[in-house]
Amino acid sequence: MAELTHLDAAGTARMVDVGDKAVSQREAVATALVVMQPETFRLLQQGAHAKGDVLTVARIAGIQAAKKCGDLIPLCHSLMLSSVAVDFELDPEASCVRIRAVCRVMSQTGVEMEALTAASVAALTIYDMCKAVDRGMVITDIALQQKQGGKSGHWQRGSE
Amino acid sequence: MAELTHLDAAGTARMVDVGDKAVSQREAVATALVVMQPETFRLLQQGAHAKGDVLTVARIAGIQAAKKCGDLIPLCHSLMLSSVAVDFELDPEASCVRIRAVCRVMSQTGVEMEALTAASVAALTIYDMCKAVDRGMVITDIALQQKQGGKSGHWQRGSE
Amino acid sequence: MAELTHLDAAGTARMVDVGDKAVSQREAVATALVVMQPETFRLLQQGAHAKGDVLTVARIAGIQAAKKCGDLIPLCHSLMLSSVAVDFELDPEASCVRIRAVCRVMSQTGVEMEALTAASVAALTIYDMCKAVDRGMVITDIALQQKQGGKSGHWQRGSE
Amino acid sequence: MAELTHLDAAGTARMVDVGDKAVSQREAVATALVVMQPETFRLLQQGAHAKGDVLTVARIAGIQAAKKCGDLIPLCHSLMLSSVAVDFELDPEASCVRIRAVCRVMSQTGVEMEALTAASVAALTIYDMCKAVDRGMVITDIALQQKQGGKSGHWQRGSE
Amino acid sequence: MAELTHLDAAGTARMVDVGDKAVSQREAVATALVVMQPETFRLLQQGAHAKGDVLTVARIAGIQAAKKCGDLIPLCHSLMLSSVAVDFELDPEASCVRIRAVCRVMSQTGVEMEALTAASVAALTIYDMCKAVDRGMVITDIALQQKQGGKSGHWQRGSE
Amino acid sequence: MAELTHLDAAGTARMVDVGDKAVSQREAVATALVVMQPETFRLLQQGAHAKGDVLTVARIAGIQAAKKCGDLIPLCHSLMLSSVAVDFELDPEASCVRIRAVCRVMSQTGVEMEALTAASVAALTIYDMCKAVDRGMVITDIALQQKQGGKSGHWQRGSE
Repeated sequence: MAELTHLDAAGTARMVDVGDKAVSQREAVATALVVMQPETFRLLQQGAHAKGDVLTVARIAGIQAAKKCGDLIPLCHSLMLSSVAVDFELDPEASCVRIRAVCRVMSQTGVEMEALTAASVAALTIYDMCKAVDRGMVITDIALQQKQGGKSGHWQRGSE
Repeated sequence: MAELTHLDAAGTARMVDVGDKAVSQREAVATALVVMQPETFRLLQQGAHAKGDVLTVARIAGIQAAKKCGDLIPLCHSLMLSSVAVDFELDPEASCVRIRAVCRVMSQTGVEMEALTAASVAALTIYDMCKAVDRGMVITDIALQQKQGGKSGHWQRGSE
Repeated sequence: MAELTHLDAAGTARMVDVGDKAVSQREAVATALVVMQPETFRLLQQGAHAKGDVLTVARIAGIQAAKKCGDLIPLCHSLMLSSVAVDFELDPEASCVRIRAVCRVMSQTGVEMEALTAASVAALTIYDMCKAVDRGMVITDIALQQKQGGKSGHWQRGSE
Repeated sequence: MAELTHLDAAGTARMVDVGDKAVSQREAVATALVVMQPETFRLLQQGAHAKGDVLTVARIAGIQAAKKCGDLIPLCHSLMLSSVAVDFELDPEASCVRIRAVCRVMSQTGVEMEALTAASVAALTIYDMCKAVDRGMVITDIALQQKQGGKSGHWQRGSE
Repeated sequence: MAELTHLDAAGTARMVDVGDKAVSQREAVATALVVMQPETFRLLQQGAHAKGDVLTVARIAGIQAAKKCGDLIPLCHSLMLSSVAVDFELDPEASCVRIRAVCRVMSQTGVEMEALTAASVAALTIYDMCKAVDRGMVITDIALQQKQGGKSGHWQRGSE
Repeated sequence: MAELTHLDAAGTARMVDVGDKAVSQREAVATALVVMQPETFRLLQQGAHAKGDVLTVARIAGIQAAKKCGDLIPLCHSLMLSSVAVDFELDPEASCVRIRAVCRVMSQTGVEMEALTAASVAALTIYDMCKAVDRGMVITDIALQQKQGGKSGHWQRGSE
């Protein structure tokens, strides 16, 4: 039967021992959505056109958060990421920002949490910078889209 | 017209000067949802009944993240929170965990970001601990429910 | 009956709400001991006479650790310490270093954990710098000696 | 003659250059003791039976501290630990909690400090969570029990 | 005679006790210069016109560094800054970027180190982002321009 | 034409992907200068003779900062440095302290930023410890002196 790997037989939390896993090239892609009022979206879009500052700040926050994932998520391993990218798509129809984070590493363990953390903190930063005009914004659909590498190989959302 | 407070007139990112704001008692409540497969939910619930370790680890991660919010969100002020609480409700119908974070501080600035960060990181930690059996879990509906204190006073979701 | 303040009625870990406590001047004094081989003690002492580097490095480590106590101890509050002092006494008879850490703050909560953390990390640093010649060193007697301020007032070891 | 490796010929503190050491599998085991009043022990034990929260929080704190050892101990190298485990044994006879931390890494340098730091911070966290009922608790016998790997090979306490 | 406040009578490093100082409004202004090849300056300027990303990233880095000054500078106190601003002036004549950082706090201790740290880390970030085309860039003239508040009152460079 | 590697074609900040670079032995040497009043220099020198505490504290601060470079400089990769050395030369003629930092790593990316960060933070720490007697001190000439390893090979200041 399937088991939660972060709990041992007695139900005790533990950091999974990855010492015997093979080192391989790992990649993970995660996404998130920040849904806002159309008026908030317009302000963000205007800023984005002129300077892009909200999105640049959110991108930096996401990249920095990926690097400190091992400090945020208690049972995550510290990793030396070879790359982190955080990109944004402005969707005027849905009045939302779509966030996509990609992390890569050569390691014994995957980078799903790093990608999810990058997307989440980028979303929180957008919320922070726009909250004075729209406290009701919602961060939603934080999800892994795909991952590659490691023993479990390739995984893609929707193709389970 | 409304303006994004974290951008000055030239669209440049800045940390809002709160030096002239009055110190007042602040509180913010944020929520998040982790939606999973029914089988994953059962494993989590069993663990929860026996030891509660997944939820305890997630609670600690959320509390710790609230304290380092100023380090994660670039334009947030560092604060000395007087309390952080992170609670969970297991919803078997919806096969999800409902997270609720409450932060309090006596300060010149609010704690919305701290509460949202606590809820988000608690959710990410649940994902981390269950991901070996269910990579498709989704973190959703990260939202501010209410905030009190400060010049803008009380705000409650749904009553704008 | 006495209760563990960091657990609520349901036994759930929480960060104690200090929002209603009075702000007062707080102080805590903690001590620790690093016991070593006489030969290790002599090497440390020689270094101490010439340059003091082992002890200076340990002092800095202890001071820095006190400042990040809220990040190390999950349910501790972040504090702005007004002073941290870490001092050492070389005891040739017992072949050990006696460490004494004093922390002060004007706050709603005490600094016992900050002082204990400063003493512990100073001790670990001495161990680190001498371990190549003596892996068997023992850090012992980490204890609060006294604390002042707050509702519970003055407390002194041995006078309970 | 034996020398303190973290001091150069002039007595100046330095971070030992491990660039020429061979990468090997390293492990270290460290222990610590938290001695308390019998009444405190009973409260802890009751909590442990019902929920285990004090020990789970202490375990998480120890694991997190091991990961940030390079930030706490000035001349330690940053490492990517492959595993950290922190376990507890409740000893009613001695009215104490025995802590055992095991760290592993594939690296050019050992993990003694990581294991000792994990044990120490787990002990400090137990102190924190129980201090309201027993300020006189003592953390003691923080010691390396054994280490493996590296040029100096296997070392075990008591068999020098 | 003047004395170094961070050393006590015995020449031992210490964190100055600010517990008896009055809380007052503090401000400090620091500057730094990044001197580069004219070709590097043109690339930076072009980026700055189109998107401003190098300078936005450097601004965020400076603001974040100011907030963690107490973690970087061993004997600095942790502070809750009420504002941090980092601004840039592009000087084509001198082929350099002029950085100006302003920090404010209501506190018992000043923010000179926070402003100097913000300017330094912003400068280092500009170096990082341009170093692939110009390793010879020099960061220079990191200096306090003025400070206000506290017992020593107003200080301005050049008017001693 | 030369391009800023940390900006992609659209001028967006990114963390350069180093996943395809070869692992090689890297080294970087950076320097910095702290210029002060002759009287300040004498106080520092006296302290240096007696105990060396200002310089030891600055050395530790520089080493610690090198280790957290990836946290300070947004687009830097986290690295596991194999060594960091920070040395000082007191120059009575110029009434300044000359700082020299050397970092080494076996990695896919260089350590220029780590060496520059170590030198900068060591300089800031000297400023901090002497500022009570000389607010006008200037940190200057922060520069890379040489780097080795990686695809671009050896680079030395002045020999471009």
